[in-house]
Amino acid sequence: MSRYAIGLDFGTNSVRALVVDVRTGEEVGTRVAPYGSGSAGVLLDARDPHLARQNPQDYLDGIEASVRGALEEAGSRDGFDARDVIGIGVDTTGSTPMPVDAGGRPLAFDPRFRDELNAQVWLWKDHTGYAEAAEITRKASELRGEYLAKCGGTYSSEWFWSKILHCLRVDPEVGEAAYTWVEIADWIPAVLSGTDDPAELRRSICAAGHKAMYAEAWGGYPDEEFLAALDERLVAIRRTLPDRAYNVSEPAGALTEEWAGRLGLRAGIPVAVGAFDAHLGAVGSGVSPGTLVKIIGTSTCDLMIAPMDRDLEDIPGLCGIVPESVLPRQYGLEAGQSAVGDIFNWFVGMLGSAERGHEELTAAAERLVPGESGLLALDWHNGNRTILVDQRLTGLVVGLTLATPPPEIYRALVEATAFGARIIMERYEAYGVKVNRIVNCGGISAKNPFIMQVYADVMGRPIQISRSPQTCALGAAVTGAVVAGPEWGGPSSFEEAMESMTGVQDTVFEPIPGNRAVYDRLFTLYRRLHDAFGVAGSRDDLADVMKTLLDIRDEARR
Amino acid sequence: MSRYAIGLDFGTNSVRALVVDVRTGEEVGTRVAPYGSGSAGVLLDARDPHLARQNPQDYLDGIEASVRGALEEAGSRDGFDARDVIGIGVDTTGSTPMPVDAGGRPLAFDPRFRDELNAQVWLWKDHTGYAEAAEITRKASELRGEYLAKCGGTYSSEWFWSKILHCLRVDPEVGEAAYTWVEIADWIPAVLSGTDDPAELRRSICAAGHKAMYAEAWGGYPDEEFLAALDERLVAIRRTLPDRAYNVSEPAGALTEEWAGRLGLRAGIPVAVGAFDAHLGAVGSGVSPGTLVKIIGTSTCDLMIAPMDRDLEDIPGLCGIVPESVLPRQYGLEAGQSAVGDIFNWFVGMLGSAERGHEELTAAAERLVPGESGLLALDWHNGNRTILVDQRLTGLVVGLTLATPPPEIYRALVEATAFGARIIMERYEAYGVKVNRIVNCGGISAKNPFIMQVYADVMGRPIQISRSPQTCALGAAVTGAVVAGPEWGGPSSFEEAMESMTGVQDTVFEPIPGNRAVYDRLFTLYRRLHDAFGVAGSRDDLADVMKTLLDIRDEARR
Repeated sequence: MSRYAIGLDFGTNSVRALVVDVRTGEEVGTRVAPYGSGSAGVLLDARDPHLARQNPQDYLDGIEASVRGALEEAGSRDGFDARDVIGIGVDTTGSTPMPVDAGGRPLAFDPRFRDELNAQVWLWKDHTGYAEAAEITRKASELRGEYLAKCGGTYSSEWFWSKILHCLRVDPEVGEAAYTWVEIADWIPAVLSGTDDPAELRRSICAAGHKAMYAEAWGGYPDEEFLAALDERLVAIRRTLPDRAYNVSEPAGALTEEWAGRLGLRAGIPVAVGAFDAHLGAVGSGVSPGTLVKIIGTSTCDLMIAPMDRDLEDIPGLCGIVPESVLPRQYGLEAGQSAVGDIFNWFVGMLGSAERGHEELTAAAERLVPGESGLLALDWHNGNRTILVDQRLTGLVVGLTLATPPPEIYRALVEATAFGARIIMERYEAYGVKVNRIVNCGGISAKNPFIMQVYADVMGRPIQISRSPQTCALGAAVTGAVVAGPEWGGPSSFEEAMESMTGVQDTVFEPIPGNRAVYDRLFTLYRRLHDAFGVAGSRDDLADVMKTLLDIRDEARR
Repeated sequence: MSRYAIGLDFGTNSVRALVVDVRTGEEVGTRVAPYGSGSAGVLLDARDPHLARQNPQDYLDGIEASVRGALEEAGSRDGFDARDVIGIGVDTTGSTPMPVDAGGRPLAFDPRFRDELNAQVWLWKDHTGYAEAAEITRKASELRGEYLAKCGGTYSSEWFWSKILHCLRVDPEVGEAAYTWVEIADWIPAVLSGTDDPAELRRSICAAGHKAMYAEAWGGYPDEEFLAALDERLVAIRRTLPDRAYNVSEPAGALTEEWAGRLGLRAGIPVAVGAFDAHLGAVGSGVSPGTLVKIIGTSTCDLMIAPMDRDLEDIPGLCGIVPESVLPRQYGLEAGQSAVGDIFNWFVGMLGSAERGHEELTAAAERLVPGESGLLALDWHNGNRTILVDQRLTGLVVGLTLATPPPEIYRALVEATAFGARIIMERYEAYGVKVNRIVNCGGISAKNPFIMQVYADVMGRPIQISRSPQTCALGAAVTGAVVAGPEWGGPSSFEEAMESMTGVQDTVFEPIPGNRAVYDRLFTLYRRLHDAFGVAGSRDDLADVMKTLLDIRDEARR
């Protein structure tokens, strides 16, 4: 008899539910439920390009719509029974926190704050707290160097404390009405398992460790003295936070009768502790030590794991090194690019023509050879997450001529993201984390072989593609299966679950030596622009950049 | 009784004829005749983006169509009589030379070479000779420093000897079949006045001085020893060139019976020696010492004159300082930007949407305030003519974000061309040529007040606009009137002719102090990118460029 686990994957614009056979990895049902509010689920403010919020009600509506839809699809199969679903796992974007009251209820549900943007969920890509991020970095480097060392040396405006501090500063009414702040990765499992009291809520070590300066080494979340040095009001928030955070091998609780009824599932099945989408994407891609998993979507996460029984140096510029943030007994290492698919979408949107969408531009860009456009771009349209950790960087295109057509720019943008990916890989390796294998996952990986070939050529490594087209949801389902465990007919370990539930496609993208050689030359130029525009105090004479590009172009056109 | 002069203005895509009343400046008839060959009159080669040629037959067809059309329009007025046309002036693009045989006949008319691109006219913007230009610069700096000093220190790929040398190198058959090479500024007046023998042809000092290293100081064109050091075959070409070149106060000859018949004019009226469009555009804009005339079209020319009775330093990076290239007894000083309107056209073409043409983008860009886009561009999409004299530079845009819309880029491109214009103005002034007045002319000047305001704000000077919408053709007509002179009922001097035939519009664009202040900050950044990407050996730490742009943006949006 088959057993199933459900993965719930909360993305930027929608939530996906995936029903997976825990013994075969077969994905028997899935449904995506778009969020109803704002612009594709994101609440924006025309006056502030840094702002991005979400309505928490969208998540609740989305759970019901996506799970019921996925079960409906699964139900069309002979022998499927929703009562054979044995566990639920949850992944979300992050750091995506929201303010809640003492009963764990979102302030956004309070009629006083319903229309207040600051009381909503602060989406990962909200950068309104950039000044506070700089302040936290400064203060930590003065007072608590160790806090920074594990998050790459710079605290980001995308993260937990930057957002809370910014809210306190710009909107004391909301900021002071918040009893505590909760990542949605923690809130969703709490909702499904009926945990109202914030003190009872099991916070994810993935969210806490990567985004909130949590580490067992210094007793959990940052200490009160440090937080008080930033803002006295943070001390009260600190006191609402637990001493311990949990990894995804542990249950957040059991599905309530009420939610079981709404979803058509058995009550009491375990719900795993939540984690971020990328981390469970790595699980869904079959991550193991030496494997770099790149989750490529609007942005990327570049994840690796490394055994905790060996010493690991701090790696400057990484988003974080967090024990058990991906799997138990392994360090989780997170890097990432702030925008990838978003850059391609921006360009297509700017052209604004139905005849020049991704498909047409990809087809035309693919006909070009490396170097022939004479173009080079910096992929910083949404800042640089790794290795510069600087949201106040911007995109650049150099090499434009009167003859430059859109497909050349499209290709240059693709290449720029590949160069950015190579910078990250080289940073891992420079600090002793060897990359033996690359597995890409996420929509672009499955849909765009041209881009994957550019990545293979630029990175100089074979690129494998995760078998599942919805790796994050699959990884979440793996955690649902693992927390259910043999007691419910599930697997006895992550190893066993990943062995049976995950895999890669047969197609492997191998680097083409000729392309690789040109890209090595272009990467040298990329690196110089990267340092010249990204690293304060760097010294570089860039006068030959445009000319070398033209030399490469002329050779490529020969 | 009224007297008229005709100006013939040979542009990149068409020829315009203008019939002007020599006493009032009234423009009584005009007609534009597009060239029939290639892409909008330009012969291209898909394999080589540097190549741009023209078919000389297009010019001959164009003379007839444009003059007859202009006379037809003039003829609809009471009392107009084509027999009252007393002189013809000619301006053309340049350096735009072509190979001719010993009878002065274009090789392109020889059936052997009819389909050979190298036997056609080499249009000003043909950059195929960039390697030869570098070779000429190198050789001249070794052997004849004085040759370079008067053309800004670098010999351009757009110019006479680069093109001839490149032709000899890549196509010896055409190169060696050429008896000599003739600028079309010289060929058109020769055709109209029936001068077949190349030895009799009066070559323009404007073309010779600015583009062919001609100067009385060293006995005219470059000496044989120097040319032989480049290529022995140039010596034969040198021997076909005259000892003396002519300014536009002198006639090239008199209109032949045949052409008089074809055009409907009196035979025997004088045809002035030709000059380049920009130089006669300066005349048509009423140039005088201290006035900077900017002819703004697909590219720009930035012209000044300075009395020859005072010493004038060499000005590095200028296209040329040539005695009498604009007016008699004055140095003509030429600078320019390799692309201006062409950059805006490129961007509009890339968007490729009827709803986002120049008008729509201008309207949207005008609603932005300086600095609010966070963007900065380098206007080098077609290289940099002044002050870097380097065709192998390319365009750049920095500051792109996921929220950057097309009007912000359009405005950044406009601003980049204004910064480029300011660099030129400051170069003039740094070498003692004070700019007391700026007069803009050319299509963009008349049609786009938004762009003119940006120029006033960036340059920090009031901007006047030439009264005539076709200043180059008007300047050509002025030369036609002057060579006719009192004998034919025309003016007795350039001063008299310009006083009655030229003028500026009432509207003056004054710098807006607040805009000026922001643009001063942006110009500082522009200058740093300019030097970092354009000047070999420059040393600059650019790491703050993107951040300063964002600071300026945030202040602008406040």
